Amino acid sequence: MTSSIILRIVPFMGSVLALIMSVIFILMIGKKSRGNKRMQEISDAIFLGSRAYLTQQAKIMLLFFIVIEVLLFAMVKFKFLQYASLLAFATGGGFSLLIGYIGMWISTKTNSKVTQAAKDKGLGEAMNIAFTAASATGLLLGVVALFDTSFWFNILYWWYGRGTSDLISNLDNVVNILVTFTIGASFAAFFMRTGGGIFTKAADMGADYVGKVESGLREDDYRNPATIADNVGDNVGDVGGMMADSLESWVGAIISAEFLGFLAFKGSTLIINSILLPILISTTGVIASITAMFFIKIIVRRYKQNASVSLLTTTTLSGLLITSVIIIILTFFTTRFVMGIENIRIFYSCIGGIFAGFLIGLFTLIYTDSKYRPTRNIAESANSGPGTLVVNGLAYGMESTILPALTVIGAMIFSFYIAGGSSDLRIGLYSVAISAVAMLSVSPFVIAIDVYGPIADNSGGIAEMAELGPEVRKTTDKLDAVGNTTAAIGKGILIGSAAITAIALGQAYFSKIETLNIKLIIDFMKDPKILAGLFIGVIMPYLFTSLLIGAVGRAANKVVIEARKQIKDVIAGKSKGDPKAFITIVTKAAQKGIILPGILVFLIPVIVGLLLGPGGVVALIIGTLLSGFAQAIFMANSGGAMDNAKKKIEEEGRSGTPEHAASVVGDTVGDPLKDTAGPSMNILIKLISVVSIETAVLVITLSGKIFH
Amino acid sequence: MTSSIILRIVPFMGSVLALIMSVIFILMIGKKSRGNKRMQEISDAIFLGSRAYLTQQAKIMLLFFIVIEVLLFAMVKFKFLQYASLLAFATGGGFSLLIGYIGMWISTKTNSKVTQAAKDKGLGEAMNIAFTAASATGLLLGVVALFDTSFWFNILYWWYGRGTSDLISNLDNVVNILVTFTIGASFAAFFMRTGGGIFTKAADMGADYVGKVESGLREDDYRNPATIADNVGDNVGDVGGMMADSLESWVGAIISAEFLGFLAFKGSTLIINSILLPILISTTGVIASITAMFFIKIIVRRYKQNASVSLLTTTTLSGLLITSVIIIILTFFTTRFVMGIENIRIFYSCIGGIFAGFLIGLFTLIYTDSKYRPTRNIAESANSGPGTLVVNGLAYGMESTILPALTVIGAMIFSFYIAGGSSDLRIGLYSVAISAVAMLSVSPFVIAIDVYGPIADNSGGIAEMAELGPEVRKTTDKLDAVGNTTAAIGKGILIGSAAITAIALGQAYFSKIETLNIKLIIDFMKDPKILAGLFIGVIMPYLFTSLLIGAVGRAANKVVIEARKQIKDVIAGKSKGDPKAFITIVTKAAQKGIILPGILVFLIPVIVGLLLGPGGVVALIIGTLLSGFAQAIFMANSGGAMDNAKKKIEEEGRSGTPEHAASVVGDTVGDPLKDTAGPSMNILIKLISVVSIETAVLVITLSGKIFH
Repeated sequence: MTSSIILRIVPFMGSVLALIMSVIFILMIGKKSRGNKRMQEISDAIFLGSRAYLTQQAKIMLLFFIVIEVLLFAMVKFKFLQYASLLAFATGGGFSLLIGYIGMWISTKTNSKVTQAAKDKGLGEAMNIAFTAASATGLLLGVVALFDTSFWFNILYWWYGRGTSDLISNLDNVVNILVTFTIGASFAAFFMRTGGGIFTKAADMGADYVGKVESGLREDDYRNPATIADNVGDNVGDVGGMMADSLESWVGAIISAEFLGFLAFKGSTLIINSILLPILISTTGVIASITAMFFIKIIVRRYKQNASVSLLTTTTLSGLLITSVIIIILTFFTTRFVMGIENIRIFYSCIGGIFAGFLIGLFTLIYTDSKYRPTRNIAESANSGPGTLVVNGLAYGMESTILPALTVIGAMIFSFYIAGGSSDLRIGLYSVAISAVAMLSVSPFVIAIDVYGPIADNSGGIAEMAELGPEVRKTTDKLDAVGNTTAAIGKGILIGSAAITAIALGQAYFSKIETLNIKLIIDFMKDPKILAGLFIGVIMPYLFTSLLIGAVGRAANKVVIEARKQIKDVIAGKSKGDPKAFITIVTKAAQKGIILPGILVFLIPVIVGLLLGPGGVVALIIGTLLSGFAQAIFMANSGGAMDNAKKKIEEEGRSGTPEHAASVVGDTVGDPLKDTAGPSMNILIKLISVVSIETAVLVITLSGKIFH
Repeated sequence: MTSSIILRIVPFMGSVLALIMSVIFILMIGKKSRGNKRMQEISDAIFLGSRAYLTQQAKIMLLFFIVIEVLLFAMVKFKFLQYASLLAFATGGGFSLLIGYIGMWISTKTNSKVTQAAKDKGLGEAMNIAFTAASATGLLLGVVALFDTSFWFNILYWWYGRGTSDLISNLDNVVNILVTFTIGASFAAFFMRTGGGIFTKAADMGADYVGKVESGLREDDYRNPATIADNVGDNVGDVGGMMADSLESWVGAIISAEFLGFLAFKGSTLIINSILLPILISTTGVIASITAMFFIKIIVRRYKQNASVSLLTTTTLSGLLITSVIIIILTFFTTRFVMGIENIRIFYSCIGGIFAGFLIGLFTLIYTDSKYRPTRNIAESANSGPGTLVVNGLAYGMESTILPALTVIGAMIFSFYIAGGSSDLRIGLYSVAISAVAMLSVSPFVIAIDVYGPIADNSGGIAEMAELGPEVRKTTDKLDAVGNTTAAIGKGILIGSAAITAIALGQAYFSKIETLNIKLIIDFMKDPKILAGLFIGVIMPYLFTSLLIGAVGRAANKVVIEARKQIKDVIAGKSKGDPKAFITIVTKAAQKGIILPGILVFLIPVIVGLLLGPGGVVALIIGTLLSGFAQAIFMANSGGAMDNAKKKIEEEGRSGTPEHAASVVGDTVGDPLKDTAGPSMNILIKLISVVSIETAVLVITLSGKIFH
């Protein structure tokens, strides 16, 4: 057990390392010029708008959190949970909010610096600044993920572990508390990502339609006061929300692996190590990400002025490859040291997971990058009008679900059979969860290449609003193009890992029920309740998408009405416009839009549990996962491809043509799909799973009292 | 067994009755005026175009059929099937093609008569003619469904039944042959419905875009030569295809019920009766439909000139209610007589099924009729441009899946528990299948109110092309409005019943495997192969939708190019246009578009079976069903609502406004969803199921040889 102390300390060291590096990155860009006064003003307006939104969102989150804490307290009182759960829930949510806020702070403080660099020093330096800021953000994720999971584990280890046998007999409680922690993170992610998604798209759609289509202004024209809200949206949705989302995925994967490890190695001396392994694999991810970040910085510095879009894209992709390879190498030694050579098969599943993530990222690229056939075809179909273009975009989006689904299936079956198979069921399941952890250990790097997109987008907005001329805008557009490509890959990895995490969480739920000595046979051909659960699961994504997109539509309508009023006055020179009005409109809309989904996501697992029993809940989890995965990819890629089709037409200098108008319609349709509903599927899938796990004992007890 | 002879004769009598009534209806409208020469010419052009398409389609179908017959022959040679299967497959396909053709013939021969009646005698008489023709078509479905299923049953009864014990020991073969028959029908439906769907939408989208948007012509303007192809499309897709689709659903439901009856009552004296019950319930459907048809004719005649849209809509809905009530009453006595009072619980499931069908129809109405909030909201969102409108349309379409899904779940659970539950599993499952049969017994009436839509649509087209003036067009538009509402309900019922039929077919497959003494545990938490099968099933609808919509998009593009060329010449007076060119383009596109899906639908169950085993196939069936159901309703209702939103804007006299342009984009997006991909989901779901059943023994034997 001495090695166990070292093992327990390593993740803390990883967390501290990530923190130090993050601070260094922040300092590196701290002194860069924020540009002229106008640029600073715009940047400040974006920051203030983002802060106003997040503060407002934090308030309603707090309200929800208090309600949930009360419910949790009741559950504690009735002995369904431990007191520590209350704190775990709060830290899960609190940390998520915290890094979302810091991420937003970094990105809004960097955007005008990137614009200035683009103006003075060209693409290379602009990329350098944007990527450094994004790296700082990505590493923050590592700080929290490692600290959080190992903090709780150590606390509980110490609390229960004064005698080791006590610890093991209480591991069930430990895992319970960890799951509550995940719920906190998931719930915060739900608020930030989904609320942010509504915010950003309502602002975007409204600003674009009135500004570009009705008033003939350019994107981000300074005369369109709704533009600030649009830029705020990038920061709250694509930075803050994205971080919360990733944190929840990563932590969810770690904790489901811990749960399944606990079950797989019950009675073995490896039990503690099997629970620590996912945190240790995650630690290798932080180390690998830092290495890759430096690699990119070196390349970018070397090329500076001569940097091109394709060079930068290749560099970022190489960075991802480097991260993956380092994780694989380190994981090999970690697994060997922690679990012994006889369990090295668990390591193979990591290769499977990482490879699958990479593949899904690649498929996303093929379906959304204008270099490839799908997006090119969509752009061409603009010739037959917006209707045909949208149909085409939706069709390619649907097609794009096939390969990622087959990849997830392949990764799952590979991990399962390589490690245990049906003869060693529990270890097989543990390995599936571990493969998700490996896939997600790339997260710090993925967040870096992901967050970098909205920063580039913002810097372009500032260039436009500050009227820095077409050359600067062209440079920031290139930066944006690199960002779009890499963000697409990042999104692919996130979705893929969410699917495998959810499978693991489903397994965790199932196993939790079995620990209650309830034998479940999840045979949907013998029990229509299972079929019913699956069916409800399959339609969940439809329900949530309609709720979220509906909220975007309503909010966009309000933005349109306000923008028509304001733009008229601004163009007539009667006023300077009131950007804050838009921020207030969309903030309210975002809050209103998530209340019902937020309540439903808690109620539905409980109701399904009461009506259909625990088997129905397992089916609900799986149904939501399968359908949500398909919907998530469909929506992300339809939207991404239509966005890039529009950009392609713009790059060809065809702005203002009917084809361009058609592509703008496509982009408008795709936007809420890819930026509101699509990313929320991730969260929906996992939230349904963790809420089910958390309420399992409660539901079973209740249904026992009601029906028997 | 004497009663058995009577029981076996009754369906034949029902079939003959339906045939007589159908002929009477055809004679009733035979002598009505076909209008002036121009109208007759247009009507003839539509007929010739439709015939050309169907002939061409029949040729490629024949090719596919020959390939399949060869494969079936090989299966017979290796003793996986009986020789009679070869004939059964051919009749299943042949009858489907036949009634599709006759349906097309009736509708194309009636369209100009309806226009003439609208011109001379007003809405009442136009409705009367259109509905009489549609009733003749609907009854044809009854003729074939009853004849086919009872013919095969009687042939096999006689062949094997010379000693009754022989029959029972050979019932397995009987059922096998019946399933092959369903495959024939399904496959024909696939060709006609899906091919027709590609045809009709490619023509429609192309004609609309170039005609309405680019050249500013009205819908069906005589100067747009692509218009004829559009009108042909209505007949081949919405009449011929719809009939084949319904036949396949109905026959599929009957045969899955027979299969499950055979298993439920094995060893009981009721076995033959339980197999006959679904055919007898279907017979009550024919009787009920005829009664309701007369009811509608009486009302329509009474009001004639004073008929209004709401009166006609109410009348048709009352007709549906009458059909349902009569079926319920007759089914009560039938079940009591055939199965005895001790099995009357099976009757209750019929009430559940019919009620569920009715409810789903109602929900469809609420989500697509412009009287209700969703469509009204979509129309309003035209104010913020086409993008917002489409987003809204998609969101409502997704929302609209919830209630129908819950209804299907409710109906399934009700039928299962009312009749048997887990204590009498097999009878429970049989009842689920019987409830689907009851739901589908309404088919002749549903087809009547469904086919009547395209007839009305065509008559409007003829009014426009023959330049009969706005008054006539207004009348035919009203007719069309009634048709759209009733067709929406009909589509709802079809989708709902397809879901329950597929559940029954899935059960049939499962049971078939069990008769091979293979114990299946379909537990997706213990066996990742089951999860993999489910996953593949869930993405199947995405794959097929993308293939089909992609084909529409490509074909529409070709139509656009040709139409631009021709319309320019026509408007310049240089030529009269060449409508045949369009028919050739879309016919080819339709054929090309279904080849790959046609092959995949056969290959995928076999490949999944070989890789994932029979459990994986069960999961594939269920996954396809759940996801396909949701997609079908999503697509049907998004498209329907956006279509009606456009019509609402037109009715308000806002044609030509930007809002109208936005709604046209919405309609263009919705069209291929609701008329090509949506209806094909039905067929996909069932085709996957029946192909799985048919190849079950083969796949198990093969995989045994390959893997062991």
